[in-house]
Amino acid sequence: MTAIRGYVFDAYGTLFDVHSVVEAGRAITSDPATLSIMWRQKQLEYTWLRSLMGRYADFWLVTEAALRYTIGRLGLVASEDEVRRLMDAYLSLACFPEVTTALARLAGRPRAVLSNGAPSMLAAAVRSSGLTTSLEHVISVDRVKTYKPSPLVYALGPEVLGVAAGELLFVSSNGWDVAGAKAFGYQVAWCNRTSAPQEELGVGADLVVDALDQLPR
Amino acid sequence: MTAIRGYVFDAYGTLFDVHSVVEAGRAITSDPATLSIMWRQKQLEYTWLRSLMGRYADFWLVTEAALRYTIGRLGLVASEDEVRRLMDAYLSLACFPEVTTALARLAGRPRAVLSNGAPSMLAAAVRSSGLTTSLEHVISVDRVKTYKPSPLVYALGPEVLGVAAGELLFVSSNGWDVAGAKAFGYQVAWCNRTSAPQEELGVGADLVVDALDQLPR
Repeated sequence: MTAIRGYVFDAYGTLFDVHSVVEAGRAITSDPATLSIMWRQKQLEYTWLRSLMGRYADFWLVTEAALRYTIGRLGLVASEDEVRRLMDAYLSLACFPEVTTALARLAGRPRAVLSNGAPSMLAAAVRSSGLTTSLEHVISVDRVKTYKPSPLVYALGPEVLGVAAGELLFVSSNGWDVAGAKAFGYQVAWCNRTSAPQEELGVGADLVVDALDQLPR
Repeated sequence: MTAIRGYVFDAYGTLFDVHSVVEAGRAITSDPATLSIMWRQKQLEYTWLRSLMGRYADFWLVTEAALRYTIGRLGLVASEDEVRRLMDAYLSLACFPEVTTALARLAGRPRAVLSNGAPSMLAAAVRSSGLTTSLEHVISVDRVKTYKPSPLVYALGPEVLGVAAGELLFVSSNGWDVAGAKAFGYQVAWCNRTSAPQEELGVGADLVVDALDQLPR
């Protein structure tokens, strides 16, 4: 690999554990894991679909729309208060256990988040997970009003950090995000937390790790 | 609704039953329905992701990539011959039972297919399902090298039929395709074969039917 002059992290699923919303789901279903998985899948679908339709809505709106669809799809019933509490769980996500020390180990070079999240969502999650001083930049796709894996999004990393994509290490646990970043020109590490097979999108990661404490300095 | 001067049909899931590939799946799994559902979901994901990445590959390639991913994800093993037989099932799809008579009922106005399918795949499926004389136009996204729900795709309907989108009835069983076509400007009928809830994408169908024999003439 080329020398690394900065790090760009995906947020949801990479730093933050989105399935930590499972607990909040217990109020409306005995199977909150299924709710969480379907909600996440639909949330991503809506980002891709709205981007292709040219109808961007921010990630807070998309996340709520995905939740409402999923509740209907699973035949569940939820009051407006329960919907609100599920949404609020997104503002107080836990980060994965190794993240804090892993980021500390990379200090000295700029560490950024580049995420689908709306700016207010990202600010809340960074704060609640205690990562405020571990990240020099928190970048939202909201600046370009489209979602990953559009090249317009990946261009924000080099632009904000002032470092060429080829000298940045992009880190994501989402295989499709890995493909998008690699296609754009980053060096890419896939944090394959779930031992998933590689996505068949014609581009792969430069390295694969199980957790963020294995990233090269 | 405004007067209808032509019909534009989605193909897979609307005219052709993609889960008729289930039978072919029995050779590699005792649960071919799960294989079929995951394969279809991944196939769509790859069309959206590749469109957003600006890395179009035709639907045959995307369908095979989605199959290979799904086989790996489910921990199955398939020989190259078995992969080939599963792919070949896409060339001889069945149409839903009411389709032939429903299309005959709409004769007199142009009837078109507008589909993600590669031209050769569509030609084979139209032939195998006996719909050759029921369709005046078979239009593939391959002309514009991107996938639904990009407006570039929906523009092909009015362009090929020579009729404004607002005077065409677009018909799809896929809720996200309904949203894309409506956002573009078609009149839209959602053929909700599975009693699915409406997608939460901010646009809905003009009418909802259970099967294609309920379409207005």
